[in-house]
Amino acid sequence: MNSPSNQLFDAYFTQPAMRAIFCDQGRVQGMLDFEAALARAQARVGLIPATAVGPIEAACRAGHFDFPALAQAITVAGNSAIPLAKALGKRVASESTEAERYLHLGATSQDVMDTGLVLQLRAAIELLEQDLQALADGLALQAERHADTPMAGRTWLQHATPVTLGMKLAGVLGAISRHRQRLNELKPRLLCLQFGGASGSLAALGDQAWPVSEALADELKLSLPDQPWHTQRDRLVEFASWLGMLAGSLGKLGRDLSLLMQTEAGELFEPAAPGKGGSSTMPHKRNPVSAAVLIAAATRAPGLVSTMFSAMPQEHERSLGLWHAEWECLPELCCLVSGALQQALLVVPGFEVQAARMRKNLDLTQGLVLAEAVSIALAQKIGRDAAHHLLEHCCREAVAQGTHLRAVLGANEQVTAQLSSAELDRLLDPAFYLGQARRWVERALAEHHNLCQ
Amino acid sequence: MNSPSNQLFDAYFTQPAMRAIFCDQGRVQGMLDFEAALARAQARVGLIPATAVGPIEAACRAGHFDFPALAQAITVAGNSAIPLAKALGKRVASESTEAERYLHLGATSQDVMDTGLVLQLRAAIELLEQDLQALADGLALQAERHADTPMAGRTWLQHATPVTLGMKLAGVLGAISRHRQRLNELKPRLLCLQFGGASGSLAALGDQAWPVSEALADELKLSLPDQPWHTQRDRLVEFASWLGMLAGSLGKLGRDLSLLMQTEAGELFEPAAPGKGGSSTMPHKRNPVSAAVLIAAATRAPGLVSTMFSAMPQEHERSLGLWHAEWECLPELCCLVSGALQQALLVVPGFEVQAARMRKNLDLTQGLVLAEAVSIALAQKIGRDAAHHLLEHCCREAVAQGTHLRAVLGANEQVTAQLSSAELDRLLDPAFYLGQARRWVERALAEHHNLCQ
Amino acid sequence: MNSPSNQLFDAYFTQPAMRAIFCDQGRVQGMLDFEAALARAQARVGLIPATAVGPIEAACRAGHFDFPALAQAITVAGNSAIPLAKALGKRVASESTEAERYLHLGATSQDVMDTGLVLQLRAAIELLEQDLQALADGLALQAERHADTPMAGRTWLQHATPVTLGMKLAGVLGAISRHRQRLNELKPRLLCLQFGGASGSLAALGDQAWPVSEALADELKLSLPDQPWHTQRDRLVEFASWLGMLAGSLGKLGRDLSLLMQTEAGELFEPAAPGKGGSSTMPHKRNPVSAAVLIAAATRAPGLVSTMFSAMPQEHERSLGLWHAEWECLPELCCLVSGALQQALLVVPGFEVQAARMRKNLDLTQGLVLAEAVSIALAQKIGRDAAHHLLEHCCREAVAQGTHLRAVLGANEQVTAQLSSAELDRLLDPAFYLGQARRWVERALAEHHNLCQ
Amino acid sequence: MNSPSNQLFDAYFTQPAMRAIFCDQGRVQGMLDFEAALARAQARVGLIPATAVGPIEAACRAGHFDFPALAQAITVAGNSAIPLAKALGKRVASESTEAERYLHLGATSQDVMDTGLVLQLRAAIELLEQDLQALADGLALQAERHADTPMAGRTWLQHATPVTLGMKLAGVLGAISRHRQRLNELKPRLLCLQFGGASGSLAALGDQAWPVSEALADELKLSLPDQPWHTQRDRLVEFASWLGMLAGSLGKLGRDLSLLMQTEAGELFEPAAPGKGGSSTMPHKRNPVSAAVLIAAATRAPGLVSTMFSAMPQEHERSLGLWHAEWECLPELCCLVSGALQQALLVVPGFEVQAARMRKNLDLTQGLVLAEAVSIALAQKIGRDAAHHLLEHCCREAVAQGTHLRAVLGANEQVTAQLSSAELDRLLDPAFYLGQARRWVERALAEHHNLCQ
Repeated sequence: MNSPSNQLFDAYFTQPAMRAIFCDQGRVQGMLDFEAALARAQARVGLIPATAVGPIEAACRAGHFDFPALAQAITVAGNSAIPLAKALGKRVASESTEAERYLHLGATSQDVMDTGLVLQLRAAIELLEQDLQALADGLALQAERHADTPMAGRTWLQHATPVTLGMKLAGVLGAISRHRQRLNELKPRLLCLQFGGASGSLAALGDQAWPVSEALADELKLSLPDQPWHTQRDRLVEFASWLGMLAGSLGKLGRDLSLLMQTEAGELFEPAAPGKGGSSTMPHKRNPVSAAVLIAAATRAPGLVSTMFSAMPQEHERSLGLWHAEWECLPELCCLVSGALQQALLVVPGFEVQAARMRKNLDLTQGLVLAEAVSIALAQKIGRDAAHHLLEHCCREAVAQGTHLRAVLGANEQVTAQLSSAELDRLLDPAFYLGQARRWVERALAEHHNLCQ
Repeated sequence: MNSPSNQLFDAYFTQPAMRAIFCDQGRVQGMLDFEAALARAQARVGLIPATAVGPIEAACRAGHFDFPALAQAITVAGNSAIPLAKALGKRVASESTEAERYLHLGATSQDVMDTGLVLQLRAAIELLEQDLQALADGLALQAERHADTPMAGRTWLQHATPVTLGMKLAGVLGAISRHRQRLNELKPRLLCLQFGGASGSLAALGDQAWPVSEALADELKLSLPDQPWHTQRDRLVEFASWLGMLAGSLGKLGRDLSLLMQTEAGELFEPAAPGKGGSSTMPHKRNPVSAAVLIAAATRAPGLVSTMFSAMPQEHERSLGLWHAEWECLPELCCLVSGALQQALLVVPGFEVQAARMRKNLDLTQGLVLAEAVSIALAQKIGRDAAHHLLEHCCREAVAQGTHLRAVLGANEQVTAQLSSAELDRLLDPAFYLGQARRWVERALAEHHNLCQ
Repeated sequence: MNSPSNQLFDAYFTQPAMRAIFCDQGRVQGMLDFEAALARAQARVGLIPATAVGPIEAACRAGHFDFPALAQAITVAGNSAIPLAKALGKRVASESTEAERYLHLGATSQDVMDTGLVLQLRAAIELLEQDLQALADGLALQAERHADTPMAGRTWLQHATPVTLGMKLAGVLGAISRHRQRLNELKPRLLCLQFGGASGSLAALGDQAWPVSEALADELKLSLPDQPWHTQRDRLVEFASWLGMLAGSLGKLGRDLSLLMQTEAGELFEPAAPGKGGSSTMPHKRNPVSAAVLIAAATRAPGLVSTMFSAMPQEHERSLGLWHAEWECLPELCCLVSGALQQALLVVPGFEVQAARMRKNLDLTQGLVLAEAVSIALAQKIGRDAAHHLLEHCCREAVAQGTHLRAVLGANEQVTAQLSSAELDRLLDPAFYLGQARRWVERALAEHHNLCQ
Repeated sequence: MNSPSNQLFDAYFTQPAMRAIFCDQGRVQGMLDFEAALARAQARVGLIPATAVGPIEAACRAGHFDFPALAQAITVAGNSAIPLAKALGKRVASESTEAERYLHLGATSQDVMDTGLVLQLRAAIELLEQDLQALADGLALQAERHADTPMAGRTWLQHATPVTLGMKLAGVLGAISRHRQRLNELKPRLLCLQFGGASGSLAALGDQAWPVSEALADELKLSLPDQPWHTQRDRLVEFASWLGMLAGSLGKLGRDLSLLMQTEAGELFEPAAPGKGGSSTMPHKRNPVSAAVLIAAATRAPGLVSTMFSAMPQEHERSLGLWHAEWECLPELCCLVSGALQQALLVVPGFEVQAARMRKNLDLTQGLVLAEAVSIALAQKIGRDAAHHLLEHCCREAVAQGTHLRAVLGANEQVTAQLSSAELDRLLDPAFYLGQARRWVERALAEHHNLCQ
């Protein structure tokens, strides 16, 4: 009997296409793909008869197998490959007892499970690449569109000098571009065959070991590593870390978004959808339902990543316990991060930008966040120290009186002797104090376009 | 459509009864139990008509609901309580539009989800308590049985003075007893109502808020906390830590077991079962298939526990993201630890003890691990310093010549002048150098029996 | 030569008194206190001459020892107790060669290090208890003072129905009270002797083992555990988890405080101090310098706690590597949490409460957060459904027109037919919709006073 | 007053040269190097007078500053850059009030701290690169030397078909080579300037912002990133992950080493050193004192790495709390991993290899681990199925009788009819059943030499 379902939050936290990769069917098919490819490879090098391949391939379809029975058999076998190989043997034998004899030759359970996992990861990476490309495109579009949309810069959650929404998003785009670059670098290390036989030496295949390895890697379109990696798990951990970094970057996006959606800020919103995050009795509420997933994934990923790190010191030629710790952990991490990506893809292209509110909030300090701009302009006329002291004085006055800095400056003769009313207006306009904001956007776009070529 | 199943390792890593608690059905029923109890409580204090209770209770059965539809609705609502309340409303209304009006009065989503979770946790704890009692009984029996079974003590994985198997198991039993004591202490903090309404003040219920709270807690047989705990999550984290500690203690058991099962040690084995951990081509193999689960759980638990800690700083009156991070994490931890417990329950009562091999291994150092015993005996005759130097000399000689310490001592006139051959035999018999080993067993048993009263 | 200092952030992140406990001097003194007490205990039971005690006690002062030399010797010994015992032996011998022979009898390195650590932890707990008492007192005072200070409730970082500052602080106080209760419960498990000798059996002490154990525990005012716990580390992990929980609760306080200090909120501030968190060019800035420590500790603690969990499966009678992993980790956690406590103690009594701003912010939604209150009042006159629909209509109108809900309600004849202008004013006054807020404060105070007795 | 020292385990757990980088002096010098380079850069582009550079550079020496005073000032400032800039200003002013005016222009605290950290990390990486090169050289030498040294393969801690020590070490070398490759890839992302001014826009520098940025990066020999990365922390987290992976690989080495050093195995030892891991009363003991550090680092690293991940979602333009969480965590991780590397460098070149014991242990199963070899040889004569059944029968017989498989085979006529006595001897000689073991070594060496070019 099947274990009861446990999927209530799947649609919210996981991308459906990723779940389709990391489900029982996906796991079993990954292992079966290994078994089928092994038969083809061994036939190619003449180790087994070509006639054995057909019946084996025909049997290697996950749909043929009874997952609950497999699950039960795992409890005795201690892994999923042994019971699958047995069930597969029975199925092949029912078609061809001859072919059954050529199944799984020279392979060990870990070869089947690890390489099967790599095949799943390859599919997962294709999905992630598509999503990252789409997310980067969306961020690029929005960064460009809002390259000149000023908003309060915030440090320590306190208003500081202005930034632009475009610059903020360019920062996220930059991180995504780096993640894509990293993925390109790690893929050759990750997408490789695990094939070592009982203890890693492939001794059972004698002289045919190497040709079979080459043919097997070729059949699976995986690279052939320098050694088997049954207890050197850095390849998987590198990918887990990458997923964790991606979760962290998306969490930063979610954190900022949720802060900007605050009732007190109201600057940037998730796109509205019927019923999404709303409340019939509190129609003002716009719960950051997508941002919650981004933050949740960034909160859960570190623990899962740390488990992968903790599982690295695997004993000798096959670990017990540490290897087992990976089996559910890495797929869970893939699913979790895919869910965050899914929400980012929903949110970014549909951002509801409240530029007017951004401008209004920029004035919450009554001009103080632009004191620096005035000070610099004054410095060119009366020297830096004098300018600094004059501004400090004016700022304190503005705070003490609860008035706008513009008014204080306009009423100060030392200031007005140097700066005209129009000049003061301009200096206190955030749009004229954005520094390199546009450059950061342009550089992010250039890097993005570069990656897309 | 349902998300594809992902349960291949469930039977191996999770106790079926725990999975039955933490599955979609279990989650939904927990929330429905809250809704039904709320109606009963509000009827008791006269807030809603008694006639509304029947239709509401009748509708509050998880089996009535379409889980995949709920899962989909969660993606828009951002939690599971809103769509469930809606679906429940429809179902109640189909029986009684009157009753539907009295559903969910004054409650917020978090009340439903958190209290529903507490109800699941209560069931989980009952299960854990039974299992811990059974495990402790098993350990007590084995500790007693092997209270006088000597084996090598091992420090830094090197042989040291002898211990007994009973004393080793008494250590595990001691930890389990402490975990049971801790569980008794934390239960009153954990098994309590969460009921606060929109922002925690229960304002919507006016003067009835308190009587309803009391009646609701009573209906659910939960305690009534000093305040709602929507964003004070220490109750849950305390339980998560407890689960993590239990996983760690079981991991220690699994680690030791796997070391003792090594081909080179062969002292203690998991009980044999047909096909369990075996290999047709390598009949000597006894893979520690259960120990693997104990170690895997102890490897995965710390990451999950750390997620619960990371999710503590929840914002204001309801968190986004941090609260969400708990939803799958705590149930996963319960399931994982239950799986380890299940394997411990398989293993402990069926231990295959190779006492002869233990004795043989005790002699691997050719008597050196008992040099201390001889030294102490000699000290009473020739003084501590002289004894120490004499023994050091004999030990070095034994190592250099590759002979047994007994032979070296027997050939040393300074030694034989003080100790007879029979005395030397006795001093080099591990059974006579076990110190307080039996006391540790007795104290562990006493503590265990004390807890069982 | 000493290792270069690494203390730049100590004053900010660690309480000085806690650092004084967990420094080289503290560690060494803890171990020396064990050695001295062991000599006293063994003299008490007559195992060693009473005359040996004086010279040993005189030598057991950390100040006598050369820490850099000890540090260097640790690299060869693999722990700190062996080189310390050697150095101590030399020092004692320089006074009395007789006394030197009675040093460290029957003890193993782990006895010295673990019990020494427990002595440090006892001092740490005394400090934590004082601080927690003071913090709870501070929270109680502030909760009471602001029991009737309304502010916006915030769920998902969106305004919801009102709460009070007192109720918010009562939640924190409740958590602190639970932490104090937990500490009371765990102390007897934690503050106990570790004494087992080479492999845990105390065989070297023969018949004197038990009397010595009892006398030793008595000398150190520690309890005597049921068994040695050299590789059963749950006692330490329980305390680490407790520290982590405390960090999490303080992190929640810091998170809320930093959000309330936002330029857009401005409701609650850390007490001002000269130069604290300020900026000469941006005089409006009030950086949450203390909250940063609270959040940083809550961010770092989970990783440190997870390390303690990961280190639980310690092999056989003494672990290598896992035991070592504890040595710096647990002290670091103590220091980190003490630092957060220190900042909480600075912040809570000095809270700068902007009640007027709280009131103003409560109106940011133009009355919508109180729609629920009006709806309930109307329901008593026209029925719940009619009231709900009427209010929903009015709320939507208020949002659409950008006007205050009070104005919309006052202009709606269906509403004014039921509720007078004075009644409407009252219903839209947050001070009249605070539900059980005061009760939560009172219960928190009662629990707090209960704990203090 | 300085905080008391806390360095007792530094020499054991940290490489001294790494501690020299990550100490107060190192931190302060990193920040000062930024300040000096900023002055040079601004002079180069004509923003400040060339005459200001000299006094500034002269003052930028860590030795000039009072660290305890800085530490105290940090508690008010909330970071280390503000008090350092103040102290630096005073020092410069004491030489040249003119130069003091040109200090720190346009920079914010985070620019100083982050870039200072990057400079420390660059020095750390140089050290790590040297150590990794040396470790890889050592592993290559040992792998080559022991390429033909057979030993038991061990899966699930049970004996399996033979491997070689060389092949085992080649696996470690492979991981180290991949880590070196990864480091090469991440360095350009990590070793880059952080320079953004108050909110990241560099607005205060007006048109000079970009030229100053370019000159500053050039002065510091850092690359110029596409955007400032004040709240996009993936660069640091990537490096932290890399450190964690390295710790994991070294932990695997330590784990295997400690298992091979077991009294029951005795196959591979840490090099002996006077007093290292020894015991005067137990002269057989060889405590794995270095392996303990490798395992401890692999146990502690995951928690520290997870903290860096948890700290990623940093708010807006500067985080409070999450940024702070990095300050001590990343340096601690560097130090910890350097310590593990240091021990690996001690251990690997000095391995004490007990080849004879390896051969002896290979026979512990009395030939069963080579049954596979015989079965394959027989299969070529009598077919695979017949051979398999025959061997299975013989193996069971050997186990039942407690005799060596060679004897059973030699007595079985079906076997001897096919295989001569010499053939049987050869088949039961592990040295002839090593498969690709030598190839794995050669490929690891080739990859290693490739990296060194």
